[in-house]
Amino acid sequence: MQIILLSGGSGKRLWPLSNDSRSKQFLKLLPAPDGMRESMVQRVVRQLGAADLHCPITVATSESQKDAITNQLGDGIAVVTEPSRRDTFPAICLAASYLEKEAGCGRDEVVVVMPCDPYTEADYFATIARMADAVEHRVADLVLMGIRPTYPSAKYGYVIPDERDSATGICRVERFTEKPDVPTAERFMAEGAFWNGGVFAFRLGYMTDQVRKYVEANSFAEIRSRYEEFPKISFDYEVAEKAASVAVVPYAGEWKDLGTWNTLTDELRDPSLGNVILDETSENTHVVNELEIPILCIGAKNLVVAASCDGILVSEKAQSENIKHYADRLHRRPMYEERRWGEYKVVDTVEFADGYKALTKQLTIHASKCISYQVHRHRDEVWTFVEGTGELVLDGTVTPVGRGDTVRIAKGVKHAVRAISDLVFIEVQSGDMLIEEDIERYDWSW
Amino acid sequence: MQIILLSGGSGKRLWPLSNDSRSKQFLKLLPAPDGMRESMVQRVVRQLGAADLHCPITVATSESQKDAITNQLGDGIAVVTEPSRRDTFPAICLAASYLEKEAGCGRDEVVVVMPCDPYTEADYFATIARMADAVEHRVADLVLMGIRPTYPSAKYGYVIPDERDSATGICRVERFTEKPDVPTAERFMAEGAFWNGGVFAFRLGYMTDQVRKYVEANSFAEIRSRYEEFPKISFDYEVAEKAASVAVVPYAGEWKDLGTWNTLTDELRDPSLGNVILDETSENTHVVNELEIPILCIGAKNLVVAASCDGILVSEKAQSENIKHYADRLHRRPMYEERRWGEYKVVDTVEFADGYKALTKQLTIHASKCISYQVHRHRDEVWTFVEGTGELVLDGTVTPVGRGDTVRIAKGVKHAVRAISDLVFIEVQSGDMLIEEDIERYDWSW
Repeated sequence: MQIILLSGGSGKRLWPLSNDSRSKQFLKLLPAPDGMRESMVQRVVRQLGAADLHCPITVATSESQKDAITNQLGDGIAVVTEPSRRDTFPAICLAASYLEKEAGCGRDEVVVVMPCDPYTEADYFATIARMADAVEHRVADLVLMGIRPTYPSAKYGYVIPDERDSATGICRVERFTEKPDVPTAERFMAEGAFWNGGVFAFRLGYMTDQVRKYVEANSFAEIRSRYEEFPKISFDYEVAEKAASVAVVPYAGEWKDLGTWNTLTDELRDPSLGNVILDETSENTHVVNELEIPILCIGAKNLVVAASCDGILVSEKAQSENIKHYADRLHRRPMYEERRWGEYKVVDTVEFADGYKALTKQLTIHASKCISYQVHRHRDEVWTFVEGTGELVLDGTVTPVGRGDTVRIAKGVKHAVRAISDLVFIEVQSGDMLIEEDIERYDWSW
Repeated sequence: MQIILLSGGSGKRLWPLSNDSRSKQFLKLLPAPDGMRESMVQRVVRQLGAADLHCPITVATSESQKDAITNQLGDGIAVVTEPSRRDTFPAICLAASYLEKEAGCGRDEVVVVMPCDPYTEADYFATIARMADAVEHRVADLVLMGIRPTYPSAKYGYVIPDERDSATGICRVERFTEKPDVPTAERFMAEGAFWNGGVFAFRLGYMTDQVRKYVEANSFAEIRSRYEEFPKISFDYEVAEKAASVAVVPYAGEWKDLGTWNTLTDELRDPSLGNVILDETSENTHVVNELEIPILCIGAKNLVVAASCDGILVSEKAQSENIKHYADRLHRRPMYEERRWGEYKVVDTVEFADGYKALTKQLTIHASKCISYQVHRHRDEVWTFVEGTGELVLDGTVTPVGRGDTVRIAKGVKHAVRAISDLVFIEVQSGDMLIEEDIERYDWSW
């Protein structure tokens, strides 16, 4: 059995903690069993293990999320990145092609596709095992999870069941309906319809046959290079709704989208995280502070307050999803990013009348990781090392670096750095254009 | 005529904008006639000029406020700093001694003492002129301003008048009462009592005679060096209540203490200052943002939100004065300071397990200003110049510096810098102890 975990989303509704490179599923805010905190993807992977679903996991995602996934889930997880953003059908095609061409899986291998962000309980994973079992026993070509609705939502897709097997509880699917109006949704609920939870199980061959309708190729690399040839369409429309043989396995437990501050804060263990003072007259207020400076809340009622290097949110809880209306006005370069080599935060920016700019970062490179050999054409950088040891390359010359060392890297100078122990430095960039895209990468063998 | 402007206060109740070095009277938040914003001290000095009170001003203050006063009011204002914090009587003694011994004022010179922070209108300054006139015409030895009460406050001192001159409106004073209970305050109001506004007028000789009761000396320097010999007592208790001949000049106009966020925000022109988005469902909310990152408020009701390098406040307006209960827990080194040479802000701090620290500042040195020739024993500094030109001294050697230059100043190296044009640089400090007090100053002639 193989798991394909879909990790997408731009995460604008959890601003300022989420940004273009840090989607909601990477925020380490949820209480973990060890007393620490974990992100949504970490929670799903931990829950898969707890349910004894120790099968290989392939994450289907975008290039911008790859580093965060590897950092949070480790190197043991395969990551397949879309060359461009399309929809769930092409993303699943690519991951299935990876399993076929690179991972060497056979046509009969059972594959479960699931999203990484619903907040669920153990029975969700037991339901996934039942779905895989149904595919194994050829109950249907395609088996999906039916979430028992808790209210007549007009936001979800509905699965209308047909006959039900009284022994297994598994139903055949009569049809699908996207986002009905509320009265129709009420009727569906009365008739025993389910929400489509976006969890699908099938044999790999079933999916690779779909791939071949659009791209016939020998290698995964070729399929990936022809990614634009897949139609921009969801798996539901392209596969589920057209499938001749579909069954649904019901799930009646907790299933929540923690996609807004209002729903997310319901699941937090503590009313505050980080350097926060919340006075005793504050009520029903959550404060998440990633900055070092303190946040003091006095008499705060029904608020969510969140602060990061990207900005500060003060929102009435029930209105917090209105963030999305301001996303464009708040759009800036990410001020915090998790990368495969570690992370950085932007701590200061200043721009002068003639357009010259300065930008200061604090960077951490994890032990044994390195940043690529690179050149900037528009900026000088000054690095002051304040923790750890490593090796620096400047135009081909390697020198050891560590706490107390300062190096100035003028524009045009090739440079790389490798951490021996966790390496922390302050970087002052200055120049007429300070963007992440001002980078040319070269090969370097350490 | 001479004005002594008293500038004290720790400003904890306007945290995070006010801190140990930036008291409330220096916050440039009030709307100025030119469409810009001005601080409380700038407003008072502008209002004195507008009332044609173009007499010399001496500011009596603490050492920590000296640089901010000079920056905000210019070099034309005399500043007398207390060697230690005592009370208003010693502070006025010191300023009066300065006028006698240094400014060469005669015994008959009329002196008006006034606080720098009440928010008042033009008639307040016309009342000051009437007070000076009353001293000039020897109506009484001591003339004070009586504020017409607007409610029976138990927080203020009351001045109980005796007979009233129907031509001038000036009253003799029968007695003073500090902070009565509310029923007594109601009776005082009914009987025509005033609040003591802390504005006093007298002839200089009247005050220097008081000085000589405690310190008899020939020079201002000697009086200042013996500052501890003055009793720690207010001017009201030591002088006003004991005075044989006291008159009060009434003032019935606007007179407010803008000492809490709730009262200060009433006087702001705009609901937001700085990088702020306040959505249309927010009501009666003020946001002051000194940080570069944006603040987004959604559905905020009756809040004050304030952010600076020192921290972030989210408070229900009416409860904002409760900040003072948290002052100790929030007390840190100031993260923003105005200095005689310019200003700095701390943009990042980090501390490692072994106690080693790094601290990053953005500094601006104003054209023609310099920082003193100095040595640090516990920290290295790396300066990256990003704007302007200047001259740097390192262990006695002068070199020109400007945009694009980086210099590393190891601990023990004497250094100074002078700005030719406004000079901006990023400073990365690192070491085992990063405190402003780690400084030894030396002489340097530019």
